[in-house]
Amino acid sequence: MMELKVDLGERSYPIYIGEGILDDIVDLFNKHRISKLSPILLVTDDQVAEFHLDKVLELLLKGGFQVVSSIIPAGEKSKSIAQFEDLITVAIESGLDRKSTVVALGGGVVGDLAGYVAASYMRGIAFVQIPTTILAHDSSVGGKVAVNHPLAKNIIGAFHQPELVLYDIATLRTLPERQIKAGLSEVIKHGFIRDADFVAWIDHNAYKLLELDSEALEFALYHGCRIKSIIVSQDERENNLRAILNLGHTIGHALEAVAKYNGLLHGEAISIGMVGAARLSVLLGNPEHIYTETKRILRKLGLPIQLPKQLDIDEIMVAMMHDKKFDSGRMTFIIPTEIGEVEISNQVTLEQVSQVLEQLKQEE
Amino acid sequence: MMELKVDLGERSYPIYIGEGILDDIVDLFNKHRISKLSPILLVTDDQVAEFHLDKVLELLLKGGFQVVSSIIPAGEKSKSIAQFEDLITVAIESGLDRKSTVVALGGGVVGDLAGYVAASYMRGIAFVQIPTTILAHDSSVGGKVAVNHPLAKNIIGAFHQPELVLYDIATLRTLPERQIKAGLSEVIKHGFIRDADFVAWIDHNAYKLLELDSEALEFALYHGCRIKSIIVSQDERENNLRAILNLGHTIGHALEAVAKYNGLLHGEAISIGMVGAARLSVLLGNPEHIYTETKRILRKLGLPIQLPKQLDIDEIMVAMMHDKKFDSGRMTFIIPTEIGEVEISNQVTLEQVSQVLEQLKQEE
Ligand SMILES: NC(=O)c1ccc[n+]([C@@H]2O[C@H](COP(=O)([O-])OP(=O)(O)OC[C@H]3O[C@@H](n4cnc5c(N)ncnc54)[C@H](O)[C@@H]3O)[C@@H](O)[C@H]2O)c1
Ligand SMILES: NC(=O)c1ccc[n+]([C@@H]2O[C@H](COP(=O)([O-])OP(=O)(O)OC[C@H]3O[C@@H](n4cnc5c(N)ncnc54)[C@H](O)[C@@H]3O)[C@@H](O)[C@H]2O)c1
Ligand SMILES: [Zn+2]
Ligand SMILES: [Zn+2]
Repeated sequence: MMELKVDLGERSYPIYIGEGILDDIVDLFNKHRISKLSPILLVTDDQVAEFHLDKVLELLLKGGFQVVSSIIPAGEKSKSIAQFEDLITVAIESGLDRKSTVVALGGGVVGDLAGYVAASYMRGIAFVQIPTTILAHDSSVGGKVAVNHPLAKNIIGAFHQPELVLYDIATLRTLPERQIKAGLSEVIKHGFIRDADFVAWIDHNAYKLLELDSEALEFALYHGCRIKSIIVSQDERENNLRAILNLGHTIGHALEAVAKYNGLLHGEAISIGMVGAARLSVLLGNPEHIYTETKRILRKLGLPIQLPKQLDIDEIMVAMMHDKKFDSGRMTFIIPTEIGEVEISNQVTLEQVSQVLEQLKQEE
Repeated sequence: MMELKVDLGERSYPIYIGEGILDDIVDLFNKHRISKLSPILLVTDDQVAEFHLDKVLELLLKGGFQVVSSIIPAGEKSKSIAQFEDLITVAIESGLDRKSTVVALGGGVVGDLAGYVAASYMRGIAFVQIPTTILAHDSSVGGKVAVNHPLAKNIIGAFHQPELVLYDIATLRTLPERQIKAGLSEVIKHGFIRDADFVAWIDHNAYKLLELDSEALEFALYHGCRIKSIIVSQDERENNLRAILNLGHTIGHALEAVAKYNGLLHGEAISIGMVGAARLSVLLGNPEHIYTETKRILRKLGLPIQLPKQLDIDEIMVAMMHDKKFDSGRMTFIIPTEIGEVEISNQVTLEQVSQVLEQLKQEE
């Protein structure tokens, strides 16, 4: 088992990563003083529930915890105000109090939604993440929690750090292949932002990762989390630096919004977004290989690099302007300046963006 | 103009109190760097709008600010998830960005709702309070923001400190008489908690306060805010000490919930709750005059001291158990041990509570 400390002063917490560590859940909960006197709200989705809920429930109940579980429908659509309200109702009806804990068992959707419930219920109660997707390595660092609005993703939320994150690689074995690839998109994003060596390592180990090799995965998740945690520690509330984590997300979020949270997985949208950012980079005068390498490695991981032809460019542009990253009338892009390095730029014109979006439709 | 600094480290902010200081709004906004490049969302209710919106809008627009105003229906019912969602929609559609500010012009309802929008939109943007009720002196200190759930008051919320509070006594002159009295209930609550001299002063100046004498009001609001701010500075997140501010609220909130946020004003419910807490105090062995004095002064301020006879005691008991203050299976009460002193108690039995509720129906 590897342990990574996310360093945030009095809000610091550990991420435990390893094969089979769900078996240690009771010990870890005890170690972190998760209350046994107050009910726990365990949130998961119907797909994750099928594979992993019974085990978690059994362990916790045996360990002396009171647990109420709530199963939401799988998928991004559940990250809604309506679902948020339902969970709050369950929390009230189940008698959750200020010493209670919300536990998220699932991917980023369950994590973000349950996390926002934890952040808001009684103005904030304890929160534990048990990520079950590769992509959720990203959401398990940094405390961003949120739900979507029909007009914009993640627009309603908070910063709420968990007490601990318990990341059992064994749970990833039930993931559909497409989800594995989509998850690796955010792993390599962390390399593209800060660590050329990590990108090279992923390039070299791409097939092992796609096969969910235990050791490779532990290494990749640890490093992905580590890079993010270093950045987040320096800028918890995203005043500035933390924005670099949004590489690929300006375009990516807009694609998701226009595709109405259907059709494209988050990691897939981000993959296309990273190719777009690399193209913008070249347009701004950076070397061509940033674009070709970005594209080559993403393709090797089985990720999409082409903008779906049926999506309307103007709609995507409008969605981008609704995005949080559209600040004081300027669009903000994270631009790679080399493999493993990025900068925050306000220099990109609307025209350049729509040009790149057109080009993204032609990628092969 | 008086200025009170609420001391919360990097989240510190000033409360400006004075007759006619709305005229200085542009200067104060400039001083506190409220952005002119990003739209302001100004939230108010339909009653406050009638008297005060035009002036605020005109001043801000003249001062070069971009303002979108949104008028909600007056009343506690607007502190709902549905209203919250509507305001978020307005915020998105009006292009609010991370540098935008939400301004609350109104009483505690507008403040709590708009504050929760500010806390949640893009995970938190700037917030300014312009309280227009006496009661809102309470909500302008401490950063508690929230909406209600049909099953429990203030159950969904956050801590979100404003950039500044602008408290113009002139706006209070349009308040209905009943609202004035209800507001004074929370002012004297601060005296009951911490300051016997302030209670004596209020007792002495009760009629001036009820007539909205400018000087008396400025003094009372300043001192009410000051007492609260000292307590909040010591315990921002209500881990412990801050709970004493809930004097009268365990019973009071339950009354409001059972009366379905109708029929009883918050300050009125709290008045009855304070009489209840004083009765519990005597039941626990404290001197009788705590109860008789509490009751006498509240009555002098024109506040209700009797539990409405049609409310069902069992329903009130259930509502209390749903309350945030019902922690790990124990009911928490703030009990006066003298006029101007309180303690936090877990010693009260359910039987004592229902006995006191019965007695509260007999008060005269
Ligand atoms: N908070 C953050 O910092 C942050 C960072 C990145 C992404 N996100 C959010 O995360 C979300 C995407 O996360 P995600 O890709 O994990 O989505 P997800 O939670 O929807 O999971 C993807 C799918 O896999 C299924 N699944 C999950 N675990 C499984 C398992 N072990 N076995 C079988 N099926 C399983 C789910 O039921 C779902 O259908 C987005 O909403 C995104 O905004 C948040
Ligand atoms: N956040 C906190 O710390 C805190 C503290 C105390 C109370 N509260 C909350 O505050 C709310 C009660 O506040 P309130 O009593 O101010 O309620 P309110 O905002 O509903 O105002 C009371 C009524 O007076 C009207 N009004 C307001 N200002 C007026 C003016 N200047 N002239 C004419 N009419 C005016 C309003 O339209 C409303 O009808 C409750 O929801 C309570 O939970 C919050
Ligand atoms: Zn992402
Ligand atoms: Zn109150």
